[in-house]
Amino acid sequence: MTTILRPRRRPVVRSGPIDEAFATLAGRPDVISFAVGAPDPALLPVDTVASLAADALAEYGSTALQYGVTRGFPPLLEQARVLLSGRGIECPPERLHIATGGSGALHNLGMALLEPGAVVLVESPTYGPAVKVFRSHGAAVAEVESDAEGMIPEALDAALAQQPDIALVYLLPTFQNPTGRTMSAARRAHIADVVIGHGALVVEDDVYTDLRYRGEPVPAFWSFAPDNTVYISSLSKTLAPALRIGIEVLPGELVEPVLALKQGIDMQTSAFAQAIAARFLAGSAARNHLELLTKTYAEKLDSMTAALTRHFPQEYRWTEPEGGMFLWVEGPPGLDTDALLGPALDSGVAFLPGSAFFADEAPSSALRLSFAGVPTDRIDRGIELLARVCAA
Amino acid sequence: MTTILRPRRRPVVRSGPIDEAFATLAGRPDVISFAVGAPDPALLPVDTVASLAADALAEYGSTALQYGVTRGFPPLLEQARVLLSGRGIECPPERLHIATGGSGALHNLGMALLEPGAVVLVESPTYGPAVKVFRSHGAAVAEVESDAEGMIPEALDAALAQQPDIALVYLLPTFQNPTGRTMSAARRAHIADVVIGHGALVVEDDVYTDLRYRGEPVPAFWSFAPDNTVYISSLSKTLAPALRIGIEVLPGELVEPVLALKQGIDMQTSAFAQAIAARFLAGSAARNHLELLTKTYAEKLDSMTAALTRHFPQEYRWTEPEGGMFLWVEGPPGLDTDALLGPALDSGVAFLPGSAFFADEAPSSALRLSFAGVPTDRIDRGIELLARVCAA
Repeated sequence: MTTILRPRRRPVVRSGPIDEAFATLAGRPDVISFAVGAPDPALLPVDTVASLAADALAEYGSTALQYGVTRGFPPLLEQARVLLSGRGIECPPERLHIATGGSGALHNLGMALLEPGAVVLVESPTYGPAVKVFRSHGAAVAEVESDAEGMIPEALDAALAQQPDIALVYLLPTFQNPTGRTMSAARRAHIADVVIGHGALVVEDDVYTDLRYRGEPVPAFWSFAPDNTVYISSLSKTLAPALRIGIEVLPGELVEPVLALKQGIDMQTSAFAQAIAARFLAGSAARNHLELLTKTYAEKLDSMTAALTRHFPQEYRWTEPEGGMFLWVEGPPGLDTDALLGPALDSGVAFLPGSAFFADEAPSSALRLSFAGVPTDRIDRGIELLARVCAA
Repeated sequence: MTTILRPRRRPVVRSGPIDEAFATLAGRPDVISFAVGAPDPALLPVDTVASLAADALAEYGSTALQYGVTRGFPPLLEQARVLLSGRGIECPPERLHIATGGSGALHNLGMALLEPGAVVLVESPTYGPAVKVFRSHGAAVAEVESDAEGMIPEALDAALAQQPDIALVYLLPTFQNPTGRTMSAARRAHIADVVIGHGALVVEDDVYTDLRYRGEPVPAFWSFAPDNTVYISSLSKTLAPALRIGIEVLPGELVEPVLALKQGIDMQTSAFAQAIAARFLAGSAARNHLELLTKTYAEKLDSMTAALTRHFPQEYRWTEPEGGMFLWVEGPPGLDTDALLGPALDSGVAFLPGSAFFADEAPSSALRLSFAGVPTDRIDRGIELLARVCAA
């Protein structure tokens, strides 16, 4: 007799297109991939991490290898406080928490706040894997009408007034994944008014903010509504994804429930990774590395927009982000970019179809391009190949 | 207007006594602590990890710092296969998974299998934090009668026959936390018959198995019921807790749901930590370090049993484990060891009360002692202090 798994009443979560793209592309090094929002491997600071690891073990000894405090490794909590202060986030230290990546922070929060019957409001389009996290905790996800700056305040106001079971509002205000768009300070202030008026809770996902190539920094949404916002950032884009370091600022009432659940999720984020991250932020390494990243990614972004202009059919439009890793390309009405993915892979180029970024996953005329991971001198060729698939 | 958190219907999880002990003891370096089951800090391989980290970055380059495959870093999956083969676990490679610590594996499994209405059967006593994980997913936890070898097969048979909603049976068969007891091969075979007969699913928590100081190894429970068992191990006790490396063998039907949820929990376990672990297991470092650990911990265990015999009142009994990190001490009937904890801390010694290891958390006449983290030459003094508190 084989195992009888107890029938589940909770929704089943399946692998999504981003995971599948990762798996497919792992076996196709020939493909020029604009699909995945990962750092350029050529820019990952291998030598720096080797010396930071040695430094961290010399400085912190066995503490860097032992079980630690759930909230975070104290030297990293202090460095995170300084980092966030530079973004206008002056939070009481006891509200800071080091999570296992930005995704770990989001999952932990989902454990604390969501359950069947809860509703999460998101931008349209939004970061697809976040939708999956919310659903994995049983929540329903509803899109709120959005424009070139993100969520529209009046639409949010109406949604909050109508629905009694809204657990949180998920925003990615700066260099949004997938569109690259950024919410202006005025829009943030307006959204904050609405949120505070309803006593609602916003989760601000802010993992790209340091990757700014032009324009002026906009204060974090948190600074407009600090008591109503969970702020999530990470070092995955500016140091290394593999360290799995997330930084989170919690409203006071959420600290205890989030940390109690964190103990059951993974006890604590790796003290060794946290020790390395603390050394990175404390010295000049972080500043030097960010200079290299922003210089290189700015060139890639410029190459991509130039290539789109050069190769793409007239009826296509794309965003012009000031930072981050993504461009959002809108094709003509009726285009189904899901249907383009196979032919694109056959031609040697990859992207993610827009359907991955809407709550209903319906066919979309848009596609997401990441310029970060492709060598600058292959971007033009990749866009040319993609343009041919689009025009076919 | 402050944030209105949506009222939750799911059970709220709170910090437990182990977490509190960690927090209290962090500020009391004077206390001889038998409370926490952490490796001896003096034995954590600081220099070894420094050189493994350098090796891993030299060998794997940017792959060790990038996003990776959810299932695990391929070189570590291969080393894990070899490690488990040495324990009699010959599993198809596609069933292996690298988790974020043993606790990460347990949480991920809870996400996949549990929901309100589900029941988890546990040994009595059992590992308290696991009970909290099961409850965090809404499950009810029921103890099954146990003896000096762990769960009693006839009692398990009766429980499985009675309850329709049993999602899993949680066992810690080797050097159990908290008792140190080990289930014999005959008992494992008997439990496996019962489990297979009911088509039930066992989670085997096997994180202490390499820390054997005497006696003969017993085959993993997995080998008696491979299609009905999730096997969880970790490198936290034999390398370093801070790397957060768990090793899991899943029945085929659970691979896809567990990995799909893992993507939402933390995307993947740190590729950097996995690369270090792969180098550790591939070379002689793992064998050499395990020799040092088993030699030193065996001395500590002997010191503790000698000290208990020397100092403790006649009416106390304790287990005689062949490995692991824990002893379980039974006081006279009616003793409430919760009430002893304050006086013990005042006297400069710490332990965990037995109540932390029962599903109902009721006062217990037992207490758990860990010998692993205390310097050998302080064990006798600590037990003497504790004996005075017990005798008072």
